[in-house]
Amino acid sequence: MRIKVLKFGGTSVADPEKIRRAAERAAAARRAGWSVVVVVSAPGEMTDELLHLGRRVSSSPPARESDQLVAAGEVVSIALFSMACAELGVPAVSLTGPQAGIETAGPHANARILRIRPGRILSELRAGRVVVVAGFQGSAAGGDLATLGRGGSDLTAVALAARLGARHCEIFSDVKGIYTADPRIISNARKLRSIGFEAMLELSGAGAQVMQPRSIELARSAGLPLQVRSAFHAQEGTWIVADRSRGNTPSRRPPMARAVTEKTQVSSLAIHKGEVLLSIVDVPDRPGAAAAILARLSGAGIPLDMILQSASGRSKTVSLSFMTDRSHAARARAALAEAARRLPGGSARVETDDRIAKVSVVGTGFRRSPEVAARVFDTLSKSRINIRMISASDLRISCVVEASQGEAALRALHGAFGLAARR
Amino acid sequence: MRIKVLKFGGTSVADPEKIRRAAERAAAARRAGWSVVVVVSAPGEMTDELLHLGRRVSSSPPARESDQLVAAGEVVSIALFSMACAELGVPAVSLTGPQAGIETAGPHANARILRIRPGRILSELRAGRVVVVAGFQGSAAGGDLATLGRGGSDLTAVALAARLGARHCEIFSDVKGIYTADPRIISNARKLRSIGFEAMLELSGAGAQVMQPRSIELARSAGLPLQVRSAFHAQEGTWIVADRSRGNTPSRRPPMARAVTEKTQVSSLAIHKGEVLLSIVDVPDRPGAAAAILARLSGAGIPLDMILQSASGRSKTVSLSFMTDRSHAARARAALAEAARRLPGGSARVETDDRIAKVSVVGTGFRRSPEVAARVFDTLSKSRINIRMISASDLRISCVVEASQGEAALRALHGAFGLAARR
Repeated sequence: MRIKVLKFGGTSVADPEKIRRAAERAAAARRAGWSVVVVVSAPGEMTDELLHLGRRVSSSPPARESDQLVAAGEVVSIALFSMACAELGVPAVSLTGPQAGIETAGPHANARILRIRPGRILSELRAGRVVVVAGFQGSAAGGDLATLGRGGSDLTAVALAARLGARHCEIFSDVKGIYTADPRIISNARKLRSIGFEAMLELSGAGAQVMQPRSIELARSAGLPLQVRSAFHAQEGTWIVADRSRGNTPSRRPPMARAVTEKTQVSSLAIHKGEVLLSIVDVPDRPGAAAAILARLSGAGIPLDMILQSASGRSKTVSLSFMTDRSHAARARAALAEAARRLPGGSARVETDDRIAKVSVVGTGFRRSPEVAARVFDTLSKSRINIRMISASDLRISCVVEASQGEAALRALHGAFGLAARR
Repeated sequence: MRIKVLKFGGTSVADPEKIRRAAERAAAARRAGWSVVVVVSAPGEMTDELLHLGRRVSSSPPARESDQLVAAGEVVSIALFSMACAELGVPAVSLTGPQAGIETAGPHANARILRIRPGRILSELRAGRVVVVAGFQGSAAGGDLATLGRGGSDLTAVALAARLGARHCEIFSDVKGIYTADPRIISNARKLRSIGFEAMLELSGAGAQVMQPRSIELARSAGLPLQVRSAFHAQEGTWIVADRSRGNTPSRRPPMARAVTEKTQVSSLAIHKGEVLLSIVDVPDRPGAAAAILARLSGAGIPLDMILQSASGRSKTVSLSFMTDRSHAARARAALAEAARRLPGGSARVETDDRIAKVSVVGTGFRRSPEVAARVFDTLSKSRINIRMISASDLRISCVVEASQGEAALRALHGAFGLAARR
């Protein structure tokens, strides 16, 4: 069987008309001879609406019941999608996560896929049916329903594609692909034909919300080519494939002719406005002080994106700065305050700044090419944009700037690296 | 364990505030020492809204997918209901039909309960949890979801109560109980303290839509006392119990002191405006003609409520009349037309009348007491109401009258049988 997995996000199945259009894609693939597995999210805002109902009956809904509740959204989608396929003359069958043999482990609302028993899916595919699977859900031990956390439908699609040995997986959403920068900000941003898994992971880390990072990691380790494309336009999107120039993630299959990595070293820019900059200043410059602070943040489960230590002149103190997601800010601040209290001297203070933006340049081989970093500094300096913090790896250079200057920084860098579409 | 089953209909769980109030009843029963199983329907109009969505993507939605779709409604209810119990400090667990061990057989959208494996429910009850089960659904062979047809949540509740050996089952809805007649029509109608299973079955057949007939039959054969009551008022409703005066349905348990059958032979009146009167006239009066006509209706799956044959004077022809539900009228008419064409002579014609109402007097022992039938005739005659058709059994006397005279007939009979509440 030549299997293809198609995944449709919530906006692509938001109403009956959109469901019909999405079903037409599944029907066309089936008619072209593919064995088709479709993974769908809940329609439009249904997940949020259900969670809102939950909060109206309970101040702190138990996680098991929250999972049971929100999983109903995807069930509505799969049933409607299957009906729409049948209406187009293509037999289809809807399967909930448990019916599809998706077994999970781990906590409710943030479970992981433990294994997939593909018997039912394979027999339905052999019978010629399009199989429509509810994303984001599976069965936990004892037959309870568990969800995979936000963006979990991507994970369902990639995990199914890997397990079924699919040729590739297409992720349909309301974006046309991966761009050199957010086209809502940079009007002449260019759509990439392809991008490597690693660069895509860096882009996600840098704030691009196209795909859930866990799914990209899974596709990378399975060597499964992904295509990110629009549910509302016919054109091909962006292929996410193993980066041959890095050679460390061999694809199971010969890369498609068109799925080559772009030649430019810089493939895309990202801007992230959802983080805060936390600093602890006037920390006594003694061995173990930084370690104690980091241990406390890690103990509180705070993910950090950038970590910077700087000496503060002649006062024999240092300061540590971190970036973290806005949703963790309150807990991170509390953990830092506790760390400050326990430091000798009692002079350490915690500072927070949420009027910042993180602008990132993503590509490959930056370590080999220091001119990329040099051009970032030069470009921002010429634009009179002050860099508050910087971090660089082989795949990403991120600069923290004033929030008010974030988009100007993005625009200047997009021009400087020649990423614009040719008119 | 002293188990009690509480069933809440769609109007009783239509919004978060109503769900909270319903959960308070479950919590109170739990605190009073009962082991509590709750069965809920989908909130308010959700089932119809989901079916409407289905019709927007498909002109004839496959039944399997329709079942998968509408069953999501009850899942929303059970999760919200469990959250509301937890909020009241009473641990609860929601179970879908399949999770509750409810197995079905028969066609989608109209399945029957094949068996219930109560292991999970019993272990949750033993752990002290309120168990909240999705009504109307179960798992068919292969793990597919199947629904029990309209009113199926009543059936789920009664079947669970019977299987678990519950003391009784309370059916909460937007009516306060069973009345001597519809209180929206007869302002001084009286709420019954109790009614026998057989009389209740006749009332359902006569058009009272309080409970699904299959559930009443099941409760009767299990000897399970039911109580029909309002979700929005504290008062006790109407008990539906084995009728000791008939003695043919021994209750498993001693009848409760207050659950005795009312003394009057006539317990309640019903009016049904949802039927049509079909007639086939000028049928040659030969052996086998009526049988051929009935065979054709039965072959088309048309349920008939009243069947009347009458001679039409000296012409050596007869006419046959039937009552059936409005939803079957078109198919019934077609079946009768086909039967008419095949009759010798070619004179038979089909007539339909939907401007009719059926008024029924329900009670017990009518065969022993011909004065009940006599009083029906006398009352309607004095009110100058013409009886188009009549049928009588030991438990029910039904009269078909002009639609415009239906409520007048109901009012006259309610007075004549002294059913009014004492003021």
